[in-house]
Amino acid sequence: MSGTDRTKPPPSTAGPAVILVEPQLGENIGMAARAMANFGLSELRLVNPRDGWPSDKALAAASGAQAIVEGASLYPDARSAIADLHGVFATTARERGQMKRVFSPEEALRDIRPRLAQGERFGVLFGRERTGLENDEISLADAIVTFPVNPAFASLNLAQAVLLVGYEWFKLSSGAALPFGGEARSPPATRDMVVSLFDFLEGELDAVDFYPPDKRPVMTRNMRDILHRMAMSEQDVRTLRGALKALVEGRRARKRET
Amino acid sequence: MSGTDRTKPPPSTAGPAVILVEPQLGENIGMAARAMANFGLSELRLVNPRDGWPSDKALAAASGAQAIVEGASLYPDARSAIADLHGVFATTARERGQMKRVFSPEEALRDIRPRLAQGERFGVLFGRERTGLENDEISLADAIVTFPVNPAFASLNLAQAVLLVGYEWFKLSSGAALPFGGEARSPPATRDMVVSLFDFLEGELDAVDFYPPDKRPVMTRNMRDILHRMAMSEQDVRTLRGALKALVEGRRARKRET
Repeated sequence: MSGTDRTKPPPSTAGPAVILVEPQLGENIGMAARAMANFGLSELRLVNPRDGWPSDKALAAASGAQAIVEGASLYPDARSAIADLHGVFATTARERGQMKRVFSPEEALRDIRPRLAQGERFGVLFGRERTGLENDEISLADAIVTFPVNPAFASLNLAQAVLLVGYEWFKLSSGAALPFGGEARSPPATRDMVVSLFDFLEGELDAVDFYPPDKRPVMTRNMRDILHRMAMSEQDVRTLRGALKALVEGRRARKRET
Repeated sequence: MSGTDRTKPPPSTAGPAVILVEPQLGENIGMAARAMANFGLSELRLVNPRDGWPSDKALAAASGAQAIVEGASLYPDARSAIADLHGVFATTARERGQMKRVFSPEEALRDIRPRLAQGERFGVLFGRERTGLENDEISLADAIVTFPVNPAFASLNLAQAVLLVGYEWFKLSSGAALPFGGEARSPPATRDMVVSLFDFLEGELDAVDFYPPDKRPVMTRNMRDILHRMAMSEQDVRTLRGALKALVEGRRARKRET
């Protein structure tokens, strides 16, 4: 799905670094980079990628986020990859018997956001596709991040785990700003416009004897309730009035012809 | 990342159906199915998949979510795919000039959750990988769902868009339950245990003349503050006390040897 607008700025506070520990597939590195770009994360660190580096497969899978792949820094082990950071989370899908705090991505990012804003640097460790992080790697982290997933099917793809961290980061740092709004393309109609539409419609319905006389009050109220539910804009009122007028005048024109 | 526990039940209320309109790649259908399984969505509808159906590539990419792929229902167009539903959202990454309400996935799902719980059926339309939904398809929907993404890099992969809808559905329907907690593996230590640890440590430090006499009160308070910050469990106190004792006794043993 496209909709990219390069004139709009990315979020201002730098988010956490994404640290992939011994990722097995170049495709997943590229997909992770793309997910980072989607949500305004930019710093990718790689610990000893299995199939070597640089990786053509990673570049191909990044679809537009090549700059993140090309800017990735390489480390021989997790310890060196986190050395300069002020805080580290380890992602894991299963209980590891560690006496650590466990956060959802949302909680973790909310927790560190004020410190990020003050210039402290954080990182999130993601493990190997097949086996995740080793317990010794997890012990380097201040706390654990795990994902709210269906316990009967908890296996998240590596790039998707990165995506969820990025998504929560962007929601938090952008105030969940959507790329566009809608609806308010025309100002909400004044009640005067709406009631005038009701008058027009009810008058035309009277003209064709639509209402049984004893039912007119309740039928009118019901119809108004239906129309109110549309929460009409000025444009909506004009459009509906135009359509009703066309129906009425079309009928009259046909009548004249017969 | 694994951590699947098939003994735990999936969430109870059925979520919205995922409707992929003319998906181009079988891999993406499979990845979407996997993302659905991760977050407790189960109903997949396919409109006219480009490369035919069934698809071996979809099955291979589903990694464990084959049942969702095999249970997918096929439709010739979007209109027939939504015919039996009570409400429909269309996902799009860009403004379409439609006078529709625009929601984030979180807002959309929160909005329909009470109606889902009463047995009404909803669906979310996802468009083609390259071009998204056509405007006529969007006009079938009650409202638009779009994603809070970095406007400078807004192109979300199809399966990742499905993933985010599933993720928000699971957060909402499960109360954001994480698959496991942590930390409270041992009960929090009573203040008696903690202060007794302080006494032990300060006594041993006194024994080695650690404190300049005029600094002892402030140094003691500072050290206690550092230790308080760990919010120790009973097990933590025992572990630290054991380690301190070993240091002290090891030193004494070495002293006796000299």
